[in-house]
Amino acid sequence: MGLSRRKIDEYFMRRALSLALRGTGRTSPNPMVGCVVVRDGRVLGEGFHSCCGEDHAERAALGKTADARGADIYVNLEPCSHFGRTPPCAPLIVERGVSRAVVGMTDPDVRVSGRGLDILRSAGIAVETGILGEECRWINRGFIRRVTLGRPWVTVKGAVSLDGGMALESGESRWITGPDARAAAHRLRSEHDAVLVGAGTVAADDPELTVRHTCGDSPMRIVLDSRLSIPPGAKIFAPGTTVFTSEEAGRERRTAAAAAGMDVVTVPSGSFGLSLSHALSVLAARGVNSLLVEGGPSVIASFFREGLVDGVALFLSPRILGKNRPFSGPLVFASMDETVRITGASVKQVGNDFLLEGVPECSPAL
Amino acid sequence: MGLSRRKIDEYFMRRALSLALRGTGRTSPNPMVGCVVVRDGRVLGEGFHSCCGEDHAERAALGKTADARGADIYVNLEPCSHFGRTPPCAPLIVERGVSRAVVGMTDPDVRVSGRGLDILRSAGIAVETGILGEECRWINRGFIRRVTLGRPWVTVKGAVSLDGGMALESGESRWITGPDARAAAHRLRSEHDAVLVGAGTVAADDPELTVRHTCGDSPMRIVLDSRLSIPPGAKIFAPGTTVFTSEEAGRERRTAAAAAGMDVVTVPSGSFGLSLSHALSVLAARGVNSLLVEGGPSVIASFFREGLVDGVALFLSPRILGKNRPFSGPLVFASMDETVRITGASVKQVGNDFLLEGVPECSPAL
Ligand SMILES: NC(=O)c1ccc[n+]([C@@H]2O[C@H](COP(=O)([O-])OP(=O)(O)OC[C@H]3O[C@@H](n4cnc5c(N)ncnc54)[C@H](OP(=O)(O)O)[C@@H]3O)[C@@H](O)[C@H]2O)c1
Ligand SMILES: NC(=O)c1ccc[n+]([C@@H]2O[C@H](COP(=O)([O-])OP(=O)(O)OC[C@H]3O[C@@H](n4cnc5c(N)ncnc54)[C@H](OP(=O)(O)O)[C@@H]3O)[C@@H](O)[C@H]2O)c1
Repeated sequence: MGLSRRKIDEYFMRRALSLALRGTGRTSPNPMVGCVVVRDGRVLGEGFHSCCGEDHAERAALGKTADARGADIYVNLEPCSHFGRTPPCAPLIVERGVSRAVVGMTDPDVRVSGRGLDILRSAGIAVETGILGEECRWINRGFIRRVTLGRPWVTVKGAVSLDGGMALESGESRWITGPDARAAAHRLRSEHDAVLVGAGTVAADDPELTVRHTCGDSPMRIVLDSRLSIPPGAKIFAPGTTVFTSEEAGRERRTAAAAAGMDVVTVPSGSFGLSLSHALSVLAARGVNSLLVEGGPSVIASFFREGLVDGVALFLSPRILGKNRPFSGPLVFASMDETVRITGASVKQVGNDFLLEGVPECSPAL
Repeated sequence: MGLSRRKIDEYFMRRALSLALRGTGRTSPNPMVGCVVVRDGRVLGEGFHSCCGEDHAERAALGKTADARGADIYVNLEPCSHFGRTPPCAPLIVERGVSRAVVGMTDPDVRVSGRGLDILRSAGIAVETGILGEECRWINRGFIRRVTLGRPWVTVKGAVSLDGGMALESGESRWITGPDARAAAHRLRSEHDAVLVGAGTVAADDPELTVRHTCGDSPMRIVLDSRLSIPPGAKIFAPGTTVFTSEEAGRERRTAAAAAGMDVVTVPSGSFGLSLSHALSVLAARGVNSLLVEGGPSVIASFFREGLVDGVALFLSPRILGKNRPFSGPLVFASMDETVRITGASVKQVGNDFLLEGVPECSPAL
């Protein structure tokens, strides 16, 4: 019986998680949340947080439930206790007469963590936590990073040859991977709140950094450019692009960028260029939960150097470039022990290429 | 009915192929051959060529068959027509009263190709060829290469990081991959007739190049060493090792190597070291069907430059080495079109590492 109840709880939590994922790429700065209301094994109502400003998942699910009295409610994240853009969910759950709440994880914000559960418990609702906790933390890894560390979850993405190249010596990099991998890369973009490149990539490739070849919204576009050197003709020299720059950038260039509708943000410089931890805290303050770093090698190396990489997504092309610009760029390690190990790596085939994903050992636990 | 007969033929040919593979690593210079004798869908006898000097597969299978009259015989390679170490198989098949022969591929040696089938046809046996032809050619790719091109099938093997490194800048290369990948690499060795490294790898790593961590025979060991510079203390400075060298190597060193039981072979030098096509033709003449090139980067690059790579087996470690000695070494290509594409690539997980295997586009068709 104990086991069977657990299996049932996992089943409905999995449903809540798949509902939550329907908000992928659209809920930030909020988390992705799904909710299922169940009585006697039958789903009475379900819902998810579709977009920042819309109903929370619990309100959406209870709104579809005629009578929630005596029901179980499944939700992947602790119901909120405080007024935000919408009224709090925990009191609503109490009000609707729910008798048991199964919660995937507590609120990662230590200032409010546990308060929602307290409201439920005080009202006599049985509360169960930690069901599929690891999966629940994983889908909201970006939200957790922002709330606990004040920075987004950072994934380094690249199209790489078998010999680690992102481009030939000449700079030529189109195309290392095939059309299926490129479409998958656009899908990856659509799942992130923001995408970042360095000035070098803008100069070499003039990327658009929008979502094409697949559906989904385009993320915020970001460029690291100490001297504001990217040309006004560049595709990302456009309204809405955020440019991180330094004191070095002249007034004239700042004015031109601002006039084009770009958001020019000055951050301090460190030994390897602009301070990435500064830039990330600015992004977090703007509600960016997840950032996709699309290169080039210099920028990627800096993220590793500052210990700010949480995930890698490498599209490996079965191709040998010979002498090339390696994606790990200027990283240097003195011994094997110091090298970057990727944990939990998995590989899947995408067209003729392969996508390797994993989490660097240095990424803090969730 | 047509289709069903075809399916039945493929079924028994697959059985013949799996019998053939039981000779892996032991039949050279002969091919791997399996044979099944069938009547009315029942297997009457089966056999395979276990080792050079032993019975051919057809003789082994018919030896286990009490009465082969009216039976179908399945064999992945055309039965031989000429006396070698053993009497020819085609006349034996006729003698035993077989009525139908299903053959995977004709003999790749154009000088005798078709003669075995002619003997069968002249005796009134129905002959079917090309069943699972591609698979049949694939398992004997080494034999085919030697017989048709006068060189072994060459597979480049390496343990490589995600950024294409075979070693750190310092030369440190132990260990890039984990124990499961290393065991799989030993298995790969045991499946090859010979294994080759350059003098640089001997100097850096002093490899033993034998089969350990798994069962199977150790292949012939080969080193490329223009000046016979490998030290007498090296593990492969031992009886049976073949050393390719140049005129540059002094008499004293030659005498020492020969006294240690090594086989010292002088080949001409080309622009990038010893001529590999020369070395490979020497190996082919000695009956080597398959060669595993285990590096390092200089030797691997030379094999690619001479267009002599038929397969790659890269153990990819989910690890980033930063500045390193890339496995593609000194290869340089001016444009993306010139780079080496690997066709039919597949990836499988081996412990925490990944094995990528495929065939470079430049490898001639089988
Ligand atoms: N295959 C792929 O997936 C892929 C993806 C992207 C790029 N690429 C290739 O990569 C090459 C460009 O690489 P890259 O390394 O020159 O360009 P990059 O990494 O995109 O940009 C480097 C520039 O960013 C600026 N920057 C500011 N802060 C930085 C920091 N903290 N760390 C590092 N850089 C910082 C610096 O310029 P300022 O000093 O002016 O600020 C620096 O020169 C091109 O050949 C391109 O085709 C390939
Ligand atoms: N990760 C791995 O799987 C792996 C495997 C092997 C090696 N490694 C690493 O690779 C490094 C050694 O690499 P390496 O490039 O120096 O050594 P290498 O490729 O094993 O040997 C190169 C030497 O072989 C001789 N040679 C003769 N004919 C040649 C030809 N046609 N082409 C190229 N070389 C020829 C040359 O020396 P002579 O002029 O004296 O003849 C040349 O210097 C070490 O750090 C080792 O740890 C790693």
